[in-house]
Amino acid sequence: MIESRSIDRYFQAMADPYRRGFIERLSEGPASVKELAAPADVQLPAVLKHLRVLEDGGIVVSEKVGRVRTYRMRPDAFNAMTTWIEQRQRDMNAAFDRLAAAMAQVPEEKDH
Amino acid sequence: MIESRSIDRYFQAMADPYRRGFIERLSEGPASVKELAAPADVQLPAVLKHLRVLEDGGIVVSEKVGRVRTYRMRPDAFNAMTTWIEQRQRDMNAAFDRLAAAMAQVPEEKDH
Repeated sequence: MIESRSIDRYFQAMADPYRRGFIERLSEGPASVKELAAPADVQLPAVLKHLRVLEDGGIVVSEKVGRVRTYRMRPDAFNAMTTWIEQRQRDMNAAFDRLAAAMAQVPEEKDH
Repeated sequence: MIESRSIDRYFQAMADPYRRGFIERLSEGPASVKELAAPADVQLPAVLKHLRVLEDGGIVVSEKVGRVRTYRMRPDAFNAMTTWIEQRQRDMNAAFDRLAAAMAQVPEEKDH
């Protein structure tokens, strides 16, 4: 089972439009800090801070070759979240099925 | 398209272990504030605050009958998140396919 604190960080990493923008870009392929910063209307220190949150959260990894640091998505970036959400949806469906079954056992009053 | 601020709130709502605990409980069926507060080791005001975050984020709805307020999951609670995640995963797969196709065009040196 994934640690609760890890899942906190996953969801926290997603809860910012700039960070989601970087994830959207990196889902299309690796990119350098410069490429990521170019379309963003924020200063470089803020970009680096957001990228650190994504890396600490286990969403992206980075590699430095010479003076260029390149970021890319982790292939399992969304696994923890989707696993958690899918379990909740299974529970919701099961609860709905139980409710539907209980309703089916109620005699229809209009027939009497 | 779903507003960026709404998605922020969705993800933010998930980024807390107490709030995820309430979502886990409510996915199994509706519950009153009292029922939700019972297993949580937090005071009632904190419970109510977390529930308000979930309601503002569009994850749960509540209804008050007499003195009892009951919470239940919104059936579309996870739609915004899963839609966003699925698009990123499609992009990641497409990027991987492009990379694999490019690799396939590189002549295998060992044959020469």
